[in-house]
Amino acid sequence: MVELNFKPGDKVRLRLALEELDGQVLESSDSSVLLLKLESGYNVGIPKENILAGRILSKFNDEKTDEKNDFKLPSNAERNVGLIITGGTIASKLDSRTGGVKPLTDINEFAKFYPEIFKIVNVKKIEVPFMIASESMTPDHWIKIAESVERMLIDKEIDGVIVTHGTDFLGYTAAALSLFLRNLNKPVVLTYSQRSIDRASSDANLNLQCAARMAVSDCAEVMIVGHATINDDFCFAMPGNRTRKLHSSRRDAFKPVNDIPIAKVWPDKVEFIRIYKKRDDKRKVELDINFNDKVALVKYYPGQSSDILDYYALKHKGIVIEAAGLGHLPVTEAATNWIPRLKKHIKEGFSVCAAAQTIYGRLDPYVYSNGRELVDAGVIFLEDMLAETALVKLGWVLGHRGWIGKVKEKMLENFAGEIGDRLHV
Amino acid sequence: MVELNFKPGDKVRLRLALEELDGQVLESSDSSVLLLKLESGYNVGIPKENILAGRILSKFNDEKTDEKNDFKLPSNAERNVGLIITGGTIASKLDSRTGGVKPLTDINEFAKFYPEIFKIVNVKKIEVPFMIASESMTPDHWIKIAESVERMLIDKEIDGVIVTHGTDFLGYTAAALSLFLRNLNKPVVLTYSQRSIDRASSDANLNLQCAARMAVSDCAEVMIVGHATINDDFCFAMPGNRTRKLHSSRRDAFKPVNDIPIAKVWPDKVEFIRIYKKRDDKRKVELDINFNDKVALVKYYPGQSSDILDYYALKHKGIVIEAAGLGHLPVTEAATNWIPRLKKHIKEGFSVCAAAQTIYGRLDPYVYSNGRELVDAGVIFLEDMLAETALVKLGWVLGHRGWIGKVKEKMLENFAGEIGDRLHV
Repeated sequence: MVELNFKPGDKVRLRLALEELDGQVLESSDSSVLLLKLESGYNVGIPKENILAGRILSKFNDEKTDEKNDFKLPSNAERNVGLIITGGTIASKLDSRTGGVKPLTDINEFAKFYPEIFKIVNVKKIEVPFMIASESMTPDHWIKIAESVERMLIDKEIDGVIVTHGTDFLGYTAAALSLFLRNLNKPVVLTYSQRSIDRASSDANLNLQCAARMAVSDCAEVMIVGHATINDDFCFAMPGNRTRKLHSSRRDAFKPVNDIPIAKVWPDKVEFIRIYKKRDDKRKVELDINFNDKVALVKYYPGQSSDILDYYALKHKGIVIEAAGLGHLPVTEAATNWIPRLKKHIKEGFSVCAAAQTIYGRLDPYVYSNGRELVDAGVIFLEDMLAETALVKLGWVLGHRGWIGKVKEKMLENFAGEIGDRLHV
Repeated sequence: MVELNFKPGDKVRLRLALEELDGQVLESSDSSVLLLKLESGYNVGIPKENILAGRILSKFNDEKTDEKNDFKLPSNAERNVGLIITGGTIASKLDSRTGGVKPLTDINEFAKFYPEIFKIVNVKKIEVPFMIASESMTPDHWIKIAESVERMLIDKEIDGVIVTHGTDFLGYTAAALSLFLRNLNKPVVLTYSQRSIDRASSDANLNLQCAARMAVSDCAEVMIVGHATINDDFCFAMPGNRTRKLHSSRRDAFKPVNDIPIAKVWPDKVEFIRIYKKRDDKRKVELDINFNDKVALVKYYPGQSSDILDYYALKHKGIVIEAAGLGHLPVTEAATNWIPRLKKHIKEGFSVCAAAQTIYGRLDPYVYSNGRELVDAGVIFLEDMLAETALVKLGWVLGHRGWIGKVKEKMLENFAGEIGDRLHV
């Protein structure tokens, strides 16, 4: 076996039995395998015993500073983005010890794994407010991310912002940003990966390149950018507060719900599918991070006792219930009638909202008497808003002192496209 | 305007300006409109002012008895089914007073609305254990339905059973039947409608006809039969414990999750898509309705306190948590670490299962350290089982005294196809 003194990031040429391969060396958790990123963007793992010879074409320049606001990677790109790294699989690599993954905390290491985006955009600023898996996030993290994004949006030289994030609760953060950043002036693009970059099947590279492309596009919305299909061919840009993770492992896990994608995205182009809010550098973005985290989400299941309302009303200001069907809960004729406790707590100032546990579709309290009784009791029916978005919005609405007594009105006000036009469904 | 002395169920011929129409009169909530079911199965509403003339071709014979176990509607069909009516939209009609719907409680009235199924099958027995909307159902209702189904399955003359049911929690009942009816010998088909039969867009008629066709098929599984698409063209027969309501109003609201449909179904034929358990009249069905209703379902959301475990552990024996991603909850490094309370309650005999809040996909606790910590704490990862099915199954497993100490083993035993083959996903 030949000796290979390659380091991650090096561009190399390998001679195999039947072909020559050029590519960039990636970190590999398996010392018997050389992981190579090809020009096509695909990663291939080559058993070292199959490599007849290899030479370095260009060494990776590892002498960047990682000083936060002055970080600049070599780029010929003309447009600038801000990059916010928060953790998750997209900022993880295989841990050869456990077989699991560990965070990719170092910025230079991040750049080694993702060299392509620097061809599309110039990363003018990087912030790493924290590095955690998204299942560990709380509303405090949404606020920190929003503050980072706002700092970048007000920078005249930055054209758009990319946020890399874990997949599990990416939808919540996107919904929060869509509400926290009022009067948005530029693209805010969240992206992710389902499989870490050192696996051959990783979706990270395409997602990040398409996120970069979208971040310099004309669309001033909060978007999630990720694989449109299970193939590694193109991405969708999807509305941040109307997109849900709908698969635990597939590369196209994120789907718009009750909506269509904003655009199809490739590393080198964007094809818009629907109308969108356009960028306007003169618009002054406003950060509105008033938030009351005393809100809860409950998915109703058959036979569930309404006691759960007592439990939550004790320490919380409001609740989103994933109701059945068009927004149903057991009422008058049912063994477990929810109406008395709903009335009691709503009267005492507890806000109760209904969202659809079917995921897709719109609530309609006026088809069955069940729904009408719930409206009479004071339940707020949230149209076709995602339950996850509804939880974020309820905390945000309740966080505004000026909106006391206006919870229903504000929950049904369409601040950032979180409620769909009836014509869309 | 001509005088029309038609009654619901009458077969009539109408003369309009440009055509003649034959059909059966349906009840209409609007007295200015005659609702007619055409031979094609479609319902049309005709403003009475447009009717130039009309005559009765045959009067509806309204003199059936509704004695439960002797009910027989005229039918030339050779095969017999049992019919269980439990409420829901499929057994509802428009209430012209409120604009909502009200239950279709009378059997003869039911037969008037659904004459077609009696051409496909002979309804030998009818049971109406209760009439409620499915959102008001509790585990006691699942047990009553299972008892009705079993009584019919042991009748040698009955080829299969149809259960009409509300849509909201149809999936839970189907999951329960798949577990409660061990060693199933014949088809058990649940069906529904999203829109009541007196609306022109109703899906009820096609669903019921396809359910009848499936009930006399060769497939001895618990199935949900309903529209395959938004068109009124054909239905899918879907596995009862792996199918979920995924839209609040569309006719094709039910979708198999992590699975494919069992068959395509038309009123006159079945095309099987995958292998299935075949009917065997010699098999002796066993009713196993041991059930502990002290189980709960919780969907984890960002920042949720693990206090909720204390609340449920107080009065419950087990819980299914809709965890994030591959089965994640906040662990060691998170502000809200769930591990200490999980360990405490699991040690004291409280069963904690994880299902996927992404709906689609399989859990895998071994990819991230997060999952491994939860396994170590004793959380049972339920592969690709639907959260709704998991709740039913947990109550069923905990209802068996003989299985104390074997909860994990039994939850992961594949009793009725509720866990998918890895190759399917």
